[in-house]
Parts: sequence; C-alpha cells; structure tokens
Amino acid sequence: MAEVEAKIAKMGLYLPEPFKAPPGMVLPFKTVIVRGNHAYIAGHAPQAPDGSPAQPLGKVGSDLTLEQGAHAAMLVGLSMLASLKREIGDLDRVTQWLRVLGMVNVAPGFNSTTPVINGFSNLIVELYGPERGAHTRSAVGMAVLPLDLPVEIEGEVEIAV
Amino acid sequence: MAEVEAKIAKMGLYLPEPFKAPPGMVLPFKTVIVRGNHAYIAGHAPQAPDGSPAQPLGKVGSDLTLEQGAHAAMLVGLSMLASLKREIGDLDRVTQWLRVLGMVNVAPGFNSTTPVINGFSNLIVELYGPERGAHTRSAVGMAVLPLDLPVEIEGEVEIAV
Amino acid sequence: MAEVEAKIAKMGLYLPEPFKAPPGMVLPFKTVIVRGNHAYIAGHAPQAPDGSPAQPLGKVGSDLTLEQGAHAAMLVGLSMLASLKREIGDLDRVTQWLRVLGMVNVAPGFNSTTPVINGFSNLIVELYGPERGAHTRSAVGMAVLPLDLPVEIEGEVEIAV
Repeated sequence: MAEVEAKIAKMGLYLPEPFKAPPGMVLPFKTVIVRGNHAYIAGHAPQAPDGSPAQPLGKVGSDLTLEQGAHAAMLVGLSMLASLKREIGDLDRVTQWLRVLGMVNVAPGFNSTTPVINGFSNLIVELYGPERGAHTRSAVGMAVLPLDLPVEIEGEVEIAV
Repeated sequence: MAEVEAKIAKMGLYLPEPFKAPPGMVLPFKTVIVRGNHAYIAGHAPQAPDGSPAQPLGKVGSDLTLEQGAHAAMLVGLSMLASLKREIGDLDRVTQWLRVLGMVNVAPGFNSTTPVINGFSNLIVELYGPERGAHTRSAVGMAVLPLDLPVEIEGEVEIAV
Repeated sequence: MAEVEAKIAKMGLYLPEPFKAPPGMVLPFKTVIVRGNHAYIAGHAPQAPDGSPAQPLGKVGSDLTLEQGAHAAMLVGLSMLASLKREIGDLDRVTQWLRVLGMVNVAPGFNSTTPVINGFSNLIVELYGPERGAHTRSAVGMAVLPLDLPVEIEGEVEIAV
C-alpha cells in the first residue's frame, strides 16, 4: 500500500465512499479536475464511511462544539483525499499542497474558525509532512453551508505527472 | 459564429454589455486576466443586457425565491462569458473549466445554495459539454454581497494559446 | 532599494513583522507558497508594524466605519507584501497579480464591501501600476472572520523565476 494511505490506515481513519447526496440533490460538477500537474478540488463535506454527510450537521458554536467542528474539518480532509485517490490513483503523487479555503458554518458570535480548520491542516501536515503538506489557507465563517454542513473546504494541489 | 456563442443565441440567451456600476462605485480591478493558458475570472454579477445589475436584487430565500436565485446564477454565467469573450475573442478557446466559487446572498435559514448555483453549472455544462464544461465548485452562503447582489461567482478556466 | 519597496517607504507605509498570533493560537500553514512562477498567498490580516493584529478589530459597519475598513484592507495588502518579500526576496519579482479574494467582516445590513476592498486594490495598483497590479477580485461579506478581523484577503501572483 502507498505511504500516505498506509498512514491513514495506521491512524485508524478511513477514506469514505463517494459523496452520497440526499434524494433530489443534483451535483452537476466534479469533485476533482486534473490538468497538467495541478489538481483542483471542489468544496468537500465531512462524510461517513458510506459517503453520506457525517453527523452532526449544523452550526459550529451552537449545534457543534469547537472540538466537533475540528473533527468535522478532519473528516473533510479524508473526503478530499478519497476523491483525489479516485482521480489520481495514488495519494503519494501529491508533490505539494498549494491552497485551501476553509469555510465554517458559524453560529452568531462564534469566531474560532482557525482552530476548527486546524483539524484539516493538522491531518494534511501529519500525512504529507511539513514541506509537502504545507499549504496556504483562509479559515473563515460563512452565513450558511449547503445541507447545513458544519465545514466545507476546497483546495488545489500539485501532483507528479 | 463560433459554436458556444451560437448555442447561447439558439437558447435565446444574451451576452450582456460590460458591467455598469452605479454612480460613484469604483472598480479598480479587471474582470478577466489571461496569463499563459489560464484565464482568471473576477467575481461577476447577474447583469441585464445593458450591463446593469439584473433585477431583482436582495437575499435568496426572502427577496428572491430559489428559482429566481438559480436564474440569477445562470445570468452570472452569461456575464462571465461576456467578459471572457471580450478578453479572449472566442469562447470556443476555453479548453477546460477548472474551478468555480459560487457565493449566494442568503436569507437567514436558507441553505439551498446547491440548487441556486446549479443554475450556473447547468449553463456551463450545456454550453461546453460534460467534459470541457466540468468544473470543481463550492456553493456557499454569504452574509452579504456588494450591491445586494443575490449571487456572485468567480472562477478559473484553461484556454488554448 | 527595490522599486516597489521604495514606493512603500515614500508613501510613509511599512511592511509589518510576521503575524504575531495571540497566545494559544496555532497556525499550521504557510503565509506564502512558491511553486514554479506562481506564489500562493494565504488569507492575511491587517497588522501593526510589530505583526500583531491592527486595531480596531470588529465588524465593518458597526465597530469600524467604511473608511476604517478600507484602511484595514490597505494594511492587509502590506501584510501580504511583507510575507511575499520574506519568501521571494524582492517584491519587484512579481510580474502579475492574478486573483484576490477580499473578505469583509460585515455588520448586519452593511453591503459596501466594494469600497472596503478598494483600500487593498488601490494600494496594489499604486505600487505595481495598472498592468502588473491589475487583478481579478471578489469582495464579499463574511458572517465572521478569525479574531474578529475586519478584513481578510488571500490571493495568487505570478513571479519571475
């Protein structure tokens, strides 16, 4: 097994199935697009192993605690990696994480978006190391996210061709 | 006439004039920047044929219905295409849509940002087909958009050089 | 001294020290990542000369006036330039500004995000001129920003290699 995927297994984590949208929800876009040595990654949700949106849903700071929000952000990372693997075959092909837009569904007055999105960033740095896993980032609070997702993250990576 | 533009005409749609900002509004940036084989597309508004912000303005879920929001998102697509055409000459030069950030001006409690931004995605896939028109996307809810626009979308495409 | 930096000095402005996060805040990401001829710039804060978040903090439209918001956006530009300089050595190496996502921490009902982010755009165009300094942009209103920052901006530039 490839190195990054072996680390995921060793950490007791999982790469979820493709996103399972609720009945009636149409998603006319791709989760990952590869062109040249860049992969563009759509906004992803925290997902259960079967691909359905991970529970709990709602706003961080009221429906979810900060810690639950950070866990959800980590799960978003796994969803992105699962989509990447389906597209590029081997997660070890990522040569550099480039940019990440971390969006938190915030309750009024909740401004700790940084530690929430750290759940994602810590996972990526743990899996890819401090150089390849380094990324630029914004971690900001949204009025709403689709399906009342607590966290949604999109990004861009460089891959070996 | 080029293929994509012919489709737009056949669908009874229009490419609006350049954005007509309200008096006093200064926009010290470009709508499209081309470098190498990438075109970067600024956040665009839904526009009437003369370039003015399309009516109605306001929040989707209160001032606009979901259907009106999806129509506004489609109009944003046409605004982006009009700007692209002014910059690259021929819309058929787009070889791949890459990423799109779809921002919806949401009323409190409105979380159907996905079907709203589908108004944009469906147009692009219709015009460019399921491969060239495929794109990665986030569709999220903003606290506010400038001029109370109901939808604003930015993106990046690959073009033939 | 290089040209852009000389202009900054002549305008009486400053390049702040690296961002000084409050005690306990961990930032597991980089402010700038350079790959090939692109530099990816993380979301930056307005900073005082010593790197601490510039005062006042809070929401534009209540805690800050529009003018204070535009000044904060200009300070974000200086923070980004300071980070860029630390990474690429010479700010004159920037050959083209590409894209900017301008995020304003808005009070309810405040929708003048365009003139707020103009504080940033005007600085960049002043320093780099109307061609190199041109950029695509979105200027949008967030429910919340980390640390109650009034403005946060991320971006991407092309550099000479």
